[in-house]
Amino acid sequence: MIVYFKTMRTRDDEKQTALFKATIKVVNEIGFATSSVSKIAKEAGVSPATLYVYYKNKDDLLVSTYIDIKQDMSRVLLAGFDPDGPLRDIFKQVWVHMFDYISKNSSYFEYAEQFANSPYSQLVDKREVEKYFEPLILVLQKGIDQKIIKDVNFDILKAFIFYPVMMLANPKHCQDFETSQANIETAFGLAWDAIKL
Amino acid sequence: MIVYFKTMRTRDDEKQTALFKATIKVVNEIGFATSSVSKIAKEAGVSPATLYVYYKNKDDLLVSTYIDIKQDMSRVLLAGFDPDGPLRDIFKQVWVHMFDYISKNSSYFEYAEQFANSPYSQLVDKREVEKYFEPLILVLQKGIDQKIIKDVNFDILKAFIFYPVMMLANPKHCQDFETSQANIETAFGLAWDAIKL
Repeated sequence: MIVYFKTMRTRDDEKQTALFKATIKVVNEIGFATSSVSKIAKEAGVSPATLYVYYKNKDDLLVSTYIDIKQDMSRVLLAGFDPDGPLRDIFKQVWVHMFDYISKNSSYFEYAEQFANSPYSQLVDKREVEKYFEPLILVLQKGIDQKIIKDVNFDILKAFIFYPVMMLANPKHCQDFETSQANIETAFGLAWDAIKL
Repeated sequence: MIVYFKTMRTRDDEKQTALFKATIKVVNEIGFATSSVSKIAKEAGVSPATLYVYYKNKDDLLVSTYIDIKQDMSRVLLAGFDPDGPLRDIFKQVWVHMFDYISKNSSYFEYAEQFANSPYSQLVDKREVEKYFEPLILVLQKGIDQKIIKDVNFDILKAFIFYPVMMLANPKHCQDFETSQANIETAFGLAWDAIKL
């Protein structure tokens, strides 16, 4: 029984992964407006009826794909996260992980960026997404309390920790930027100088 | 004769402005793939034949619109630009102009961002676009030579001077960021700390 159940689960996971990848591929190719449930199901190699087992409708599919990307990204960013380590090291690790994630998953990232700029972003429960990144926010607050990090609006801090990475790791923005360890560390140095007190 | 010529020019400019605005509106609404010359001409209130007087084809229209936005942005950014003033003041003025431009022209900016992430970006002569921002690059190089600004890759410097503004000035990214003079100056302080030696 257990083995049978596990096999079923695996098959389901495969279909869901196929739908996840197909959604990103189709949307990145033809945009949110033109993407349809039937086109995405076809790309994933499943029937539209199967897609509706997992997702209520197109909105649900697009929103869930965005949330899955954010959750996936937060897991990679926070791998080996030690909230009690030196603050600079914590942020450097997150920075390197983020650089790596965006470089390797540029299509996921492209989807997420387009999504955030689309009307669909209004359907997302922003608190749910923020929860994934909560350990980072707590550490940022700790840095402010200990007078290591500037006591400024969180949006400003985030704009300097995360946004430059998004630009540098995206080959469409920075074609000539060599993603060497040295360059990534240099760039982190600027981020740290921006946020430290 | 001259008056007649001027009147013609004005009428042409109006049509071209209408096409510029229509391209941005249609593309932002339905995406690059689905946007067509006929839809854009209709939105601009001109015939497709008139559109072809100004633009060779869809590619030309999309690329020209992008280049026009970049040129327009560079004009606003560099208004009152004095390359011999104190470096910090130069960058602060550019930062404030950029914040203002993105806040007021979010649809232009959305188009430019989508364009840069699309396959159409390969059709742009990047050197032409860079030329518009050349005074800024020269001042950055001067800052490096005078050991005021960090001697690092230009892409890194640009990622910290321009990218955080793009995030903070875009209401879709930072809904809760209050665009007060104080907040804009605080954010510039972080940018300056990032790039200064």
